[in-house]
Amino acid sequence: MSLPERRYVISFGCPDRTGIVAAISGFLAEFGGWIVEAAYHTDQETGWFFTRQEVRADSLPFDVAELRERFAGVAEELGGRTDWRITDTAERRRVVLLVSKEGHCLYDLLGRVASGELDVDVRAVIGNHADLAGITRAHGIPFHHVPFPRPGGDPEGKAAAFAQVRHLVEKHDPHAVVLARFMQVLPAELCVAWAGRAINIHHSFLPSFVGARPYHQAHTRGVKLVGATCHYVTAELDAGPIIEQDVIRVDHTDSVPDMVRKGRDIEKVVLARGLRWHLEDRVLVHGNRTVVFR
Amino acid sequence: MSLPERRYVISFGCPDRTGIVAAISGFLAEFGGWIVEAAYHTDQETGWFFTRQEVRADSLPFDVAELRERFAGVAEELGGRTDWRITDTAERRRVVLLVSKEGHCLYDLLGRVASGELDVDVRAVIGNHADLAGITRAHGIPFHHVPFPRPGGDPEGKAAAFAQVRHLVEKHDPHAVVLARFMQVLPAELCVAWAGRAINIHHSFLPSFVGARPYHQAHTRGVKLVGATCHYVTAELDAGPIIEQDVIRVDHTDSVPDMVRKGRDIEKVVLARGLRWHLEDRVLVHGNRTVVFR
Amino acid sequence: MSLPERRYVISFGCPDRTGIVAAISGFLAEFGGWIVEAAYHTDQETGWFFTRQEVRADSLPFDVAELRERFAGVAEELGGRTDWRITDTAERRRVVLLVSKEGHCLYDLLGRVASGELDVDVRAVIGNHADLAGITRAHGIPFHHVPFPRPGGDPEGKAAAFAQVRHLVEKHDPHAVVLARFMQVLPAELCVAWAGRAINIHHSFLPSFVGARPYHQAHTRGVKLVGATCHYVTAELDAGPIIEQDVIRVDHTDSVPDMVRKGRDIEKVVLARGLRWHLEDRVLVHGNRTVVFR
Amino acid sequence: MSLPERRYVISFGCPDRTGIVAAISGFLAEFGGWIVEAAYHTDQETGWFFTRQEVRADSLPFDVAELRERFAGVAEELGGRTDWRITDTAERRRVVLLVSKEGHCLYDLLGRVASGELDVDVRAVIGNHADLAGITRAHGIPFHHVPFPRPGGDPEGKAAAFAQVRHLVEKHDPHAVVLARFMQVLPAELCVAWAGRAINIHHSFLPSFVGARPYHQAHTRGVKLVGATCHYVTAELDAGPIIEQDVIRVDHTDSVPDMVRKGRDIEKVVLARGLRWHLEDRVLVHGNRTVVFR
Repeated sequence: MSLPERRYVISFGCPDRTGIVAAISGFLAEFGGWIVEAAYHTDQETGWFFTRQEVRADSLPFDVAELRERFAGVAEELGGRTDWRITDTAERRRVVLLVSKEGHCLYDLLGRVASGELDVDVRAVIGNHADLAGITRAHGIPFHHVPFPRPGGDPEGKAAAFAQVRHLVEKHDPHAVVLARFMQVLPAELCVAWAGRAINIHHSFLPSFVGARPYHQAHTRGVKLVGATCHYVTAELDAGPIIEQDVIRVDHTDSVPDMVRKGRDIEKVVLARGLRWHLEDRVLVHGNRTVVFR
Repeated sequence: MSLPERRYVISFGCPDRTGIVAAISGFLAEFGGWIVEAAYHTDQETGWFFTRQEVRADSLPFDVAELRERFAGVAEELGGRTDWRITDTAERRRVVLLVSKEGHCLYDLLGRVASGELDVDVRAVIGNHADLAGITRAHGIPFHHVPFPRPGGDPEGKAAAFAQVRHLVEKHDPHAVVLARFMQVLPAELCVAWAGRAINIHHSFLPSFVGARPYHQAHTRGVKLVGATCHYVTAELDAGPIIEQDVIRVDHTDSVPDMVRKGRDIEKVVLARGLRWHLEDRVLVHGNRTVVFR
Repeated sequence: MSLPERRYVISFGCPDRTGIVAAISGFLAEFGGWIVEAAYHTDQETGWFFTRQEVRADSLPFDVAELRERFAGVAEELGGRTDWRITDTAERRRVVLLVSKEGHCLYDLLGRVASGELDVDVRAVIGNHADLAGITRAHGIPFHHVPFPRPGGDPEGKAAAFAQVRHLVEKHDPHAVVLARFMQVLPAELCVAWAGRAINIHHSFLPSFVGARPYHQAHTRGVKLVGATCHYVTAELDAGPIIEQDVIRVDHTDSVPDMVRKGRDIEKVVLARGLRWHLEDRVLVHGNRTVVFR
Repeated sequence: MSLPERRYVISFGCPDRTGIVAAISGFLAEFGGWIVEAAYHTDQETGWFFTRQEVRADSLPFDVAELRERFAGVAEELGGRTDWRITDTAERRRVVLLVSKEGHCLYDLLGRVASGELDVDVRAVIGNHADLAGITRAHGIPFHHVPFPRPGGDPEGKAAAFAQVRHLVEKHDPHAVVLARFMQVLPAELCVAWAGRAINIHHSFLPSFVGARPYHQAHTRGVKLVGATCHYVTAELDAGPIIEQDVIRVDHTDSVPDMVRKGRDIEKVVLARGLRWHLEDRVLVHGNRTVVFR
């Protein structure tokens, strides 16, 4: 992301108690670590403490590997979760996009990358249809067409297609796998393999209108706002931890196609915001909820 | 409502075809009717046409009773729904409010009435608790305390309590019965008796989080916005036609009490808007959806 | 636009009086005209009446030219404005885009066109810099680079550049000339020549922060929301009739670049909405204000 | 405010450098201080660091006076601003409200206090008109009527009236003096005397529409959203540091009275939010901007 200088980003959680901030900031201060951004949160219900800190890389006398090694001691002392992370903003984030026929989210993300707003490395776009190959390649990005059997069709064909998708994704070791209106339900083993990295955009304000054709469901129910939800993919459909949501107003004059059109503008920004926060290590998962240090 | 001069308001629906607008506007023009506000809508799916028209009372050579009589012919010719209405803004709208312990919606509505923003006649406030008697009476409005048995308690006591509520409500023949956080589920016969007049404010963005403790449900699911829904009461809980909805942003720092507090601001405005539109005859029910001519 | 079938769109204004709706709808009904969408508005202050009507083309026994001819009589009788219009949705809308270096609005509009959401004919993109030539041509659209002298530089060079822009624009006789972050102030004669067709997106919530570097102005003032405004271009800078506006929340953590980034998402949707409404003849200019029949 | 237990709240600013967080959190940890909520911000432009911390009162072995004394050393060492504060949530916040004729903000605030949402001590309401005496006293709060000369009238009478207002306000030593649609411009000496404590609600999205009749100005300009701004009062009219703003959509159908009505809903919530944040010591003024640690 457009960070002005190289930084190390620490994401950490542990049971709440006195002295955590002192321990971490004392550790950093000892080595002259310049904290540029810091956020803290205590979940009162569960008694867990979360923090995210950005430290100027050039303020520390060692590299990120040594920072990780030294911080491990602090983390252990504090009884921290094992999923703490220290990342280096100098390492460009790798992203793979999964798409189908509808291109609005893809166009939007590629436009953000091309205009320099989203400084990520889109390694590949994979589609179960070939419709979006042209625009992808116009942006200089490889497009892979992996045909899927029709819904309800050959389960073996589907498994083979997903195996191919998995192979094409994992060779890039991406920081994020984005289901940019992919329209295929990930099999359980991919949900596990990509846990915390697979990000979906669902075209409703979850938990309303799970599953297929949410705008049709919204129209039938007569709601006055439609929305979109960016969430981590888990084995249960559309039920993973929510990263970001937003809504837009509709009224009785809006047909389903109108809702689809208006909703797209929300899908695009909600996905772009969620992806940015994920790649900037601003999202810490806590049970089925997220702490988002914006 | 703050209408600047006396008007007759026509609300009408019929199967769509050519010439409807010509028929209605021709009928009005024949008698010099001055249309001050007019709105039309055709539901493409069902082929139904809806209109709402405000006509200056002093532009017509007869009174509202005669207007209704004469319009009946037009309505019949067009195959209109039998629930068409012509109301007179000179007839002040009568409202009865049902409350429990939480006063934010009541305070808000009474403040709007007292400041002249909402020009209605609040005939009575009925509470299953007495907490809000003081503020109600300070506004010069009668308060009736009708105790209800505890949840799960004596069903006969509940039926008797509802019978008393019904009696207290119906003697005012109100244009609207507002469940301003009443927290009691109306029995089926009252849903029928007050159909199209009983208005509820539910403290979630329906259809998410139907039923009890929606803010707790929202917190557990980790949503990033909470909302409120103003809807007509029907026999199925929280499933009636939606009049208005809105949302407000929350994040991981918001505990359930924070969500409750933020959500209240939305409940208040959503209820106030929905009630205003209902009393101004701006809401036409169409199946389980509404046409709202704002 | 994604209109489901061919329609004629009537936009009309005249002094308010009784019988206007009857006159227009009677005229249409006489020939079997099927009104699919109709909107009316009376400006109480100025006593002007406005309407927009969509009629199914196949419901009338004559073509758009004859409809215009016949309607002229009705318009004259009603004392209508001379700028009334009847357009045919079968005539594809022609658009020319003016750009500079920043591509977010261009990427967004091209994406909407490519995905079929905005069914318009982008005839050309003209840039005072060549940065956006590549993406434009990747979409199969001609790009013209017209270099401008530096700010404060040679006025004759600037006049010549604008003459060239004018030539490149007018040969397409476009329905809209969009200043998609063009960053050059149109000379007075072009404001006149393109009156009601030149659409600008300004990156502030006007009338706040007119002119250059509005996000810097917003940051200095410490506002809590930043916005964008889509408006018709007139001779007075950033003061033309407003078509659409929207805002997004910012806070003390947002630097100017953060505001720029967040604001872009608003600029894109505000421009896209304003352009769509303009091209669908939903915008009627009334003095320095607009009636937008959405 | 509805804090669950007694806390000490530290608000502090100083030039940014390494080790600040370590110094403060180390100081607190030394005495077992339990940080319940902590927020930090560095203004990159000016190089100033700001923090707000909530510490459980019962976690420290001394009272708030001693905490202040001891913290003074830390503050001095860090070169902190002299306006740092440590407040005790056990001290109930005292508020005086200044009003005129329009009651919507007063009704709203009194409703929030009465329903327990805003746990403050409203010591007095002062009005230059007596219209709102009744509702104020119905809430058990003293109302003082201080008549003012008509606009443009006797300047001495105005000075005398303000002297009386000042006397009535200052005897309560309030944490906040709220101009709840007071409609009188504070004289310069009161702006100074109440600096950082006098809070105004202006009925526009500043800096648009400074001064009188902002909704009229908004209507004339044809904006598509109207707003409200809660800000600290300074000598320059409507130009003080902004605490909170919000907006609501309007369109061509909205007359000035409609805008007034819709805008009121925004005024009420913007003032309520701004006042809450001020009283919870969440607002740090930095030049003409604010850091709001929500």
